[in-house]
Amino acid sequence: MSSTTGRAESRVTIADVARQAGVSVPTVSKVLNNRDDVSPDTRDLVSGVLASSGYRPRRRQREAPAGPLLVELVITDLTSAYALEVLAGAEAGAARSGAGLVVSAAHDRDGEDRSWLSALRARRPRGVVLVVNRFGGGSVEEVASLGAPVVLLDPAGSSDPALPTVGATNFAGGVAATEHLLGLGHRRVAVITGAPFLLCSQERLEGYRAAMARAGAPVDEALVQPGDFTAEGGQRAAATLLDLPEPPTAVFAGSDLMASGVYQEARRRGLRVPDDLSVVGFDDVAMVRYMSPPLTTVRQPLGEMASESVRMVVDDVRSRDGGAPRRPQVGGVSSRGVAPHVQLATRLVVRESTAPPR
Amino acid sequence: MSSTTGRAESRVTIADVARQAGVSVPTVSKVLNNRDDVSPDTRDLVSGVLASSGYRPRRRQREAPAGPLLVELVITDLTSAYALEVLAGAEAGAARSGAGLVVSAAHDRDGEDRSWLSALRARRPRGVVLVVNRFGGGSVEEVASLGAPVVLLDPAGSSDPALPTVGATNFAGGVAATEHLLGLGHRRVAVITGAPFLLCSQERLEGYRAAMARAGAPVDEALVQPGDFTAEGGQRAAATLLDLPEPPTAVFAGSDLMASGVYQEARRRGLRVPDDLSVVGFDDVAMVRYMSPPLTTVRQPLGEMASESVRMVVDDVRSRDGGAPRRPQVGGVSSRGVAPHVQLATRLVVRESTAPPR
Repeated sequence: MSSTTGRAESRVTIADVARQAGVSVPTVSKVLNNRDDVSPDTRDLVSGVLASSGYRPRRRQREAPAGPLLVELVITDLTSAYALEVLAGAEAGAARSGAGLVVSAAHDRDGEDRSWLSALRARRPRGVVLVVNRFGGGSVEEVASLGAPVVLLDPAGSSDPALPTVGATNFAGGVAATEHLLGLGHRRVAVITGAPFLLCSQERLEGYRAAMARAGAPVDEALVQPGDFTAEGGQRAAATLLDLPEPPTAVFAGSDLMASGVYQEARRRGLRVPDDLSVVGFDDVAMVRYMSPPLTTVRQPLGEMASESVRMVVDDVRSRDGGAPRRPQVGGVSSRGVAPHVQLATRLVVRESTAPPR
Repeated sequence: MSSTTGRAESRVTIADVARQAGVSVPTVSKVLNNRDDVSPDTRDLVSGVLASSGYRPRRRQREAPAGPLLVELVITDLTSAYALEVLAGAEAGAARSGAGLVVSAAHDRDGEDRSWLSALRARRPRGVVLVVNRFGGGSVEEVASLGAPVVLLDPAGSSDPALPTVGATNFAGGVAATEHLLGLGHRRVAVITGAPFLLCSQERLEGYRAAMARAGAPVDEALVQPGDFTAEGGQRAAATLLDLPEPPTAVFAGSDLMASGVYQEARRRGLRVPDDLSVVGFDDVAMVRYMSPPLTTVRQPLGEMASESVRMVVDDVRSRDGGAPRRPQVGGVSSRGVAPHVQLATRLVVRESTAPPR
């Protein structure tokens, strides 16, 4: 690898990458252009060297300014109501910014299929919003190595403070959900957490603990059940909770989808929500208005978070292109300063799934 | 307007368009490039002339082959579970075809804001999938006038046989839903239709009528209620039905969202699904598995329909670019022959919202 690195532009060439990877220059070129006549092993090898070497395509300088700006939204999967909220917000933000939105799903929950990454690289992205809360390790760094501005939406952790993030006040949301249940008179309040390794899950759980402590309500650790953000996980956790000798009278589920699983388990046992069991969710995705009864939940402004992320990326692209950002750089992404970490406010939305205990 | 039109390439120039619209050439150029320093009235005027004149940008010939292929998905809005299924399928189809997917929402249900159209034009699309089932008039023709291959997904009508379409067997789905309810012993079977002006709504209703007629069950026209594909519309229609002197014992709702509205109205009246009222939906979007009870519905393969639409567009782009299509042209879009009209099969998925009448 070249030991001299220019400040304005990387000096790493395709030839350097080819030498380091032990392949031919045309092979590197094929990987860069997302051609399918490269074996998966070779593709992985070359992709790794491209990422670690800091290679940046030269052509972007010449091509990028032509044509309307396209921003990339990369999201783990497109199967959940969560994804829909993010997408709608990102599209609206892009339209308002005069940018187009390219959407791709990172189909590699198990790290096996990286084709989305080579396709992304081949498109020479000018700005990327990454919804990485379930990504495997490495992907964030690989996307960042493409050289375009990146914003992490709903970040999985606080591991890379150099990248700007947009999240929500998860801790405050956990407090609000728990205080609502305590205020109705519940004392045995259970919590079903999201995937435990995610920052948002930890913050919501800590909010629950803080509210319980403030109210002088001891936390029975049997009432703290791990979930995984799926309906099935919510149902399993609810079954465990309702099998306890002294079951809870209220459940704070760390996502709306898990709350729907709690509904299923309650219905299976002939328990009525909220008469026999109060339930609070988290997210406020569109489907909760169609649950029976409509779900009381903590609203996470996913759409606004997504549109804000797109705006930050667009502002940074335009400022790199030499234009002034369209608005004051309050939440802007600047490579010249410290990356901003924006948290938008959550708020409790009371509907019909909570009531005083019998 | 020029009276001589070349076969291979339109001869309409920007100057022609400017003359016809009574504006300057730079103004037409601004509209084409989606600049925001044009008044809405002027933009509409110029857009109309661009569409009617058959203007095609010259630059596409030169620029298109550079870089990975991007396909456009234009959908009325991104707020429904329907949109999520379409999006996930389109993204998967694009990824499989080695194409990127640009997503835009046509925010002009009332025809007021056409910015999505000028933004689309400015991106010089190479292929477009239009989900037009709620579009106002004109948009389909305007998008088609951009000169790129267009496929209509879930078409609103059969008005333009020249454009290829991908739909579902709505009639057969209506038959299956109704026969399921009749088979359980219901005789007073109601139907809540989708928006009545849409082809899919009409086909589902005709399927209902055909099944009723085949079973010798007379259709009481009071049991045929118009809906609009929203939960609120479903709830309103259910209220009307349940207020009848002789209310139905089963309801076939023309969409899952309307079925969720039926659930709400039943719950409001203390009626249990399916004990007091059987409900069948249409679509089988992801959320129905989280309804209580899980909804019996007609599965419309929206994801497969979307991925098939993208594949057809990609094949046509590649064949115009001079390459052979990647697969035999069974469902391909060919400008050389008759446009294909593909219908993918629907099927009934029985869950827990249907039971014999009391």
